[in-house]
This record gives sequence, C-alpha cells and structure tokens, in this order.
Amino acid sequence: MTSRDGFQWTPETGLVQGVPSIGVISPSTNVTTNQSWDVIVVGGGYSGLTSLRDATVAGLRVLLVEARDRIGGRSWSSNIEGYPFEMGGTWVHMFQPHVWREISRYQMRNELESSFDFSRGVNHFQLRSSQGESIMSHDEEVAGALAKFVNVDGQLGRKIMPLSHDTFHIPEARKYDNMSAQDRLDEISLSLTPNERVALESFILLCSCGTLQTTSFLEFLHWWALCGYTYQGCLDCLITYKFKGGQSSFAIKFFKEALSTGRLSYVFNSPVSSIHDDGKKVTLTTRDGRQYSAPRLISTVPLNVLNTIKFEPPLDPQRVAAMNIGHVNQCVKVHAEISNKDMRSWTGISYPFNKLAYAIGDGTTPQGNTHVVCFGGNFNHIQPEEDVAATKKAVENLSPGNMDIKRLVFHNWSKDEFAKGAWFFSPPQLLSTSLEALRARHGNVLFANSDWAVGWRSFIDGAIEEGTRAAMTVKEELGPRTTFRSNL
Amino acid sequence: MTSRDGFQWTPETGLVQGVPSIGVISPSTNVTTNQSWDVIVVGGGYSGLTSLRDATVAGLRVLLVEARDRIGGRSWSSNIEGYPFEMGGTWVHMFQPHVWREISRYQMRNELESSFDFSRGVNHFQLRSSQGESIMSHDEEVAGALAKFVNVDGQLGRKIMPLSHDTFHIPEARKYDNMSAQDRLDEISLSLTPNERVALESFILLCSCGTLQTTSFLEFLHWWALCGYTYQGCLDCLITYKFKGGQSSFAIKFFKEALSTGRLSYVFNSPVSSIHDDGKKVTLTTRDGRQYSAPRLISTVPLNVLNTIKFEPPLDPQRVAAMNIGHVNQCVKVHAEISNKDMRSWTGISYPFNKLAYAIGDGTTPQGNTHVVCFGGNFNHIQPEEDVAATKKAVENLSPGNMDIKRLVFHNWSKDEFAKGAWFFSPPQLLSTSLEALRARHGNVLFANSDWAVGWRSFIDGAIEEGTRAAMTVKEELGPRTTFRSNL
Repeated sequence: MTSRDGFQWTPETGLVQGVPSIGVISPSTNVTTNQSWDVIVVGGGYSGLTSLRDATVAGLRVLLVEARDRIGGRSWSSNIEGYPFEMGGTWVHMFQPHVWREISRYQMRNELESSFDFSRGVNHFQLRSSQGESIMSHDEEVAGALAKFVNVDGQLGRKIMPLSHDTFHIPEARKYDNMSAQDRLDEISLSLTPNERVALESFILLCSCGTLQTTSFLEFLHWWALCGYTYQGCLDCLITYKFKGGQSSFAIKFFKEALSTGRLSYVFNSPVSSIHDDGKKVTLTTRDGRQYSAPRLISTVPLNVLNTIKFEPPLDPQRVAAMNIGHVNQCVKVHAEISNKDMRSWTGISYPFNKLAYAIGDGTTPQGNTHVVCFGGNFNHIQPEEDVAATKKAVENLSPGNMDIKRLVFHNWSKDEFAKGAWFFSPPQLLSTSLEALRARHGNVLFANSDWAVGWRSFIDGAIEEGTRAAMTVKEELGPRTTFRSNL
Repeated sequence: MTSRDGFQWTPETGLVQGVPSIGVISPSTNVTTNQSWDVIVVGGGYSGLTSLRDATVAGLRVLLVEARDRIGGRSWSSNIEGYPFEMGGTWVHMFQPHVWREISRYQMRNELESSFDFSRGVNHFQLRSSQGESIMSHDEEVAGALAKFVNVDGQLGRKIMPLSHDTFHIPEARKYDNMSAQDRLDEISLSLTPNERVALESFILLCSCGTLQTTSFLEFLHWWALCGYTYQGCLDCLITYKFKGGQSSFAIKFFKEALSTGRLSYVFNSPVSSIHDDGKKVTLTTRDGRQYSAPRLISTVPLNVLNTIKFEPPLDPQRVAAMNIGHVNQCVKVHAEISNKDMRSWTGISYPFNKLAYAIGDGTTPQGNTHVVCFGGNFNHIQPEEDVAATKKAVENLSPGNMDIKRLVFHNWSKDEFAKGAWFFSPPQLLSTSLEALRARHGNVLFANSDWAVGWRSFIDGAIEEGTRAAMTVKEELGPRTTFRSNL
C-alpha cells in the first residue's frame, strides 16, 4: 500500500509524493454501527500503538482515531523495490528498555542489522568546514570535543545526572536547562580546536536539529546520560542498530496483536478537531463532524500539534504555555541512493555552510548501490520537496565527487501538519518549567507522547514508555469493571 | 509474615531460622473445588510471576504451584525491624530492559537508591591478600586488570560480542566457551601485577561464585558486554541500584496485579514430584499426591533442580545432560550490621585466604549501624549456618578491627533444595552445547528461567525476559479460544 506521506525522486520519475509502506492500513476503518468503547486512543504512533495493544490485550475495547492513512506517527519506513528507507525514527538499542522488551517479546532480536559497516575500509571520516577538508580514519575529533562539552562536573556528567531516567534527580541540574548549547560552547571555546568545534557543533545539531541557541544544554546532557556517558555509547544507541525490514515491520506487530483480540476498532484519515470531557465520558469530534465517545481518551498528539485541537474544558495554562512554545526539532532527513560502493564505509560532516550537515553510509540497496542517510536542521533549513536541485546539491556537497545520486527519499516533517517537526528536542527552560505539567492528566483525558517521557524522551522507547503508562492507568481505572470468560 | 527461608543471627537471639518478608503469601492457597485452568505455572520467582501476570491480564486462568511459602524464588528480601536485607538478587539498572520496563510500568523509578555512598570519605578501597594489604582511594586496580582480561580482540570484547543479547552472534565467540577464567588468566598472567591479579580474580569470582576453573570465560565476556564493555558499567549494572523497600516490594507488584484479575489461583508449600503430558493436557503431581491439570504448563524450575522432577514423556537427552552438569554458582552472601559508620564508604577484597572475598558498605540501618554485604563462593566454600563463629570470622577478616558485628542475615542457597545454587553461571562448554536445548519446549510444557535467557541470563531481567516469552507463546496458542466480555 502507498501512503500519502513522504516523497521520492529519481531521474526517471522526478519528484513523486507518497511512498509505499507496510504501515498503511486498508480498509481504513473497521467501525460498524452500535459499537461502544472503553477508551479512545488518538494517534497511531508508538505511544498510541502501545496503549491500544496493552488495553485490548487486557480486555478493554479501544477505538483508534488516526489522522493519517498509516500507523507509526513520526517513526515509519517505506519499502521501495524491496528495500526499506526510514522516513523518521530508525535506530534502536538494548539500552532502550521499552523498545528492547518489545523486540524481545516479539522475538525480533535477530531482525536487526548495523548501519555502520566498514567493510570497504576503516571508518572514512570526512570533515568539511569553511576552513577546509580533513579525511581521517576515525572520528576521535567528535569524541574528544564531546568529552569537553559534557564535563561540567569532572565526571563527564555522571555526577550531575546519575539516573538517566530522572533528569532532575540532582536538583542542581536545573541550572543547565537555563543554558543553550551555544552558552556551553562559549564556556569551553578556548579548549576546542577548529576541527573539534565543527565536529562538536554538527553532532549537537544532529541531536537537536534546532539551532545552537535553541538547544537546551540539559537535554543534551540527558541524551548523553541515556547513552552511558560515552561517545561510543551515543553511536551505539543513536545511529547503529535498525530493523532489516524497516521499523514499520516493528510497529505492525503492536497493531496486529491488538487486532487479534477482536477488541480494536479504528478509523484512519480522521483528523481531530475537538475533545470534550463532560466528567463522565469524553467525546471526540473529527474535522468532518463525526463524533465518538468513551469513558477515557488517550491523546498521543505531539506537543507541536496539541494547539490545533480544541479541548473542553480548556487545558491548564502551564500546558498551554508549553505547547505554544513547542520543541525545536525541524530535522531534514534525506536518503540518497548513490553508485559509489566505497561510501559504505564513510561518515561525513559538512558544516556550517551546507544545507545537510551530517551523513553516514547506511546500507546497500538491492541494486548494489550505497544508501546514505543525511541530516540537516533548523540552523540552515531546507524544504527538500520545494527545490529538489538544492536538495541534491546539499547531498553532493557532503562529499563532492562521490555522490552520483540515483534516488532521493524523504518526509518533510516541518511541513507535516500532524507533526510540525521531528523528534522532540527541548529549547532552554521548557523541561524545567513544563515536563511535569505535560505529563499530567486532564480529567478523563490522558496524555501519552515521547515528547514528555522521563527516559528516552524523543525516541521510540519514550513513546512506548508513555503508551505503557497511559494504558496501565486506564486498565487500573476501568479494569475491575470488566469480566472475562474463557471458553476452554 | 515470616518465611521458613533464611537465617538471622544476633548476640541476643543466636542463630534463628526464618526471616520476615512481604513476599510470604497467606493464606497459602486460594484454590477451591471445581476450578479449571488454562495454564499451570510451576515456580513463583520472576519468571513465574511474569508469566502468570501476563497470562492472567490477557484473560487466561492460571494456577501457580510453588514449593516455598513465598514468591521471588532466588530473588527476595527480608524486612527486619523496618530495614530490608536482600537474601538473593538485589540490584537493577536501566540497561536491563525487562526490569526497567516493569519499574517504569509500576512507577517505581523513584523507589531506587544507590548501594555506593562515599559520604564518609572517598571510596576506601581495601585489598587484602596473602601478600599483604593495600588501602587505596579508588578501585582502578580492578578496572585496569579487567581491561587486560577481556581484551581478546583489541576492542575490549566489542568485536567478539557486538550484540550483548546474542552471545553467539559472532560464531568465533564459541571458542571462548572452551576456555575457563583460569585459562584466560594463564594467557595474560605476565601482564598483571600481584594486586591486579588479586583484584581481578576476586571480581571474576564475585560474578561466578564458582572456581576459576569452572567459570566459562565466554559467560564472563557476556556479562561484560551486557554492562557496556566498561568496569564502570559493571559497577553500575551489577551492584549499584536497589529498591529502597527491598526487592520483594517489586515482586509483589506482579503477584497483586495478577490477583486483581480474579484469574489467578495459587498453592504454596507444594513441591512438584512429576509432570505428565498426555498430548492434550499436562498433569502435575505434588509430592503429597495432589494433581492439577491444564492444557499448558510453564516450568520455571531452575537448571540445578530440574532433575528432581520426573517428566513423562522423558526430557530430551541434551537437556538432561545439561541439567545433570548444572551451573556452578554456589554464592555465599552474608549481610552484616556493624557499628562502624565510616565503613559506609568502604569496598573490600580479602582473597584468596578468606571464606568471604568481596564486600561493600551497602546502607545504614534504622539503628544507625552500617550494613555491609559480603560475598563468597565455591572457591573457598562455607556453609554459614553450620558454623556462625567461622562466618563471623570471615566477615571480620574482610577488614580486621572494623567489623563489630551486631547482626548477620543470610540465605544458604547451596543447601536450598529448590535452588541448589544461586544465580546461573556457566561452566565451560555448557552454553555452546546446551543453551538452545534448554530454551526449547517439550510438547505442552514450556521452560522459562533466567538460567537460559539470551540477554541478562542469571539476572532478574533474564527471568522476566523468559516469563514474557513463555506467556506470549501460551497466549498465542490459547488466546483465540478465549472470549472477553466487558460490563461497561
């Protein structure tokens, strides 16, 4: 099936909107008349999928309402000519507890592979800046610079954030949420070589895809802590292991398990306009005027989109303030299929002059071409579908002379009205003022999204963490009113 | 409630068998006549608790049959005068995915605390060997020696075991299962200082609690990989974070959730004598002649105890061979309450002459005393309840002059007929020949135990991994035959 989401360009077809994905659900609804539900789940990303899976398995009747034609939200893969391109989200790791529990539970641990592959030589690490170009056999520039960046406590961040799943375990950590990445760079600038500075800035921006001024230094420290306080841990956790079949092969497991209970109803292509809680039941209204009600509703709508839905009674001022600020990640992720096989062992940075800053060789396509995945962000923004020539140029500039482009694939998350950005990354002060408010319930409406997870916030793992939390709450509240009968 | 398990000694009471625990279930059964079940779970450790929790939540009717008077198996805590002593098992970490998913799901992440506490000074690291004594301000002896020990590939074990949850991902890793820890020590002996050798051997034996000859080098590499290939990771994952209320406060969450479904039956004090699968149903017979039947049975009996149960049809020869070899861990874990407050910042090794080899200051009791947890193993074995004077002496020898003992608490796992050892640790060749056979099903009987987990084998995490796997299989096989009805 082909989703409306995503774009593909080849010399033969030019730019085409929509790419195939096994996450597209057809027919788009299974709702019949005279149904009732225990809980409505808004959104079919990992938060929604987890909550509806857990709830249906536990005996509750669930209605999924999803704006798109597919599951996965900001994390999905296309499957083009037998090869997966990850449109948003990709990498998973055993240090991500909720993700790994599911990979283990669905017996998928042997369906992972590594993005990094130096079979065409050692890690050809290429650094291009305004000052010139370096090609190295490793990426110790990044490791050394990162250690200087995070070492606020003489223990590489361990002392200020000893529990990675509790950002504010040490209250003093709050002061680092008042600092931007730029503020911290200014503090240590004398200790950095020009190459270290380029490598460090581009790595930070790979994480936040905002600007150095809009990137919370505390949130960066949180990522660092989650990855075990080492650069190798960052590489392992952030950009190494991915699903051979694309991550939609993971998401569909949740959906199918829920469906197999016989207690999952769903309507796709159904953007929500309002959510009304009368104290006994919650009524959702779609943009085209359909209404659905249930005793509980789990909203998995991302932070940057929450203010497009009218809530009655109105949401609390702290949450409204946070959602009007929003997060800063405007990631531009572009996949390129190129003919040069040696690029399989290549990692590159082209910063600050280029529209795409960071890229790695990420696979070999069935045609034997090299797959390169490239990242840009708000610091030097591009709308890839608006000017494919500029996008191609940005890819080519990553490693001039090596990028003979056969295909481009991407999803423009900035222009996506149901995302308005990619994975969560906090600007300064948002976490310390609003994280708890974003996690709070609102009457019979629960809010579950990776954007306000406590652990792997911004990641699939955080989404599953949040979906688990919401389903557990609903199960505890509604569970005792449900009886089960076995036919055995 | 007080369990039959465990021992306590104080100057006032002398040695007393049995210690209080919130894991003791009373009354010891809720079974009535005319009940039937979908699945019988043998054993109420974490594998059993997870499988019965998952199965009951999913609508299946479960009977738990447990030999003891309590839940938790080899992982449980007593609670003496308001303070928890961990009788077996203790530490958890966010890099343990199944454990952390449950800690997150039960909202217990703020109920953890750190065993290490250097508030009485820096880490007072004391090394006592036949050659003499050293007191250092850190434990870099261990870190340096460990790096030499594991560095078989120039990458500290990363190359030979890149996926910690897949021991044999690199087939070449099998050769390290033919080596014992002693074999590997012999290879690197010239590179070790005397102090490094003492620190290294005692750390290895802290992990396996066997002897250096009976410790598989590959299994040690597996632990190292799980901990992120660093000594700091080992400390973090293996002996840092524990539950403020003792881990029985964790185990009881699984049991209570299952009980709340109304689908959990249980009988404690019921050792199993035989398990008979007639192809349609499995019939379990207890030692006192009671019989229970169900379409499926999940055995969570540990490897070292499996051969005390008669299986009909007989188990396959490979499994029988493995269970007759067994694992090697004969851990002696003794808690001491002592008056010296400065020992709160102390870590000590007394090896090879002492009956207890490794200890850390692990808390402060309500009386203001220091809690020290001490470990020994099969290399220099002791049966602590048979000679309390010798046990006290072994504690005192850890740091002569500093150990004014007010209380001892322990569980002798070697003499425990339902454990016959502590956490799994493999002798050479057992993993490479038998891991898959131990994971296989036997008709309608499934085997779930941390002893043959693929990830955190030997840990609570591996137990939950295995219980999850078994429950998922049973749910998939029996689930469609079950209908649910909601009252909402």
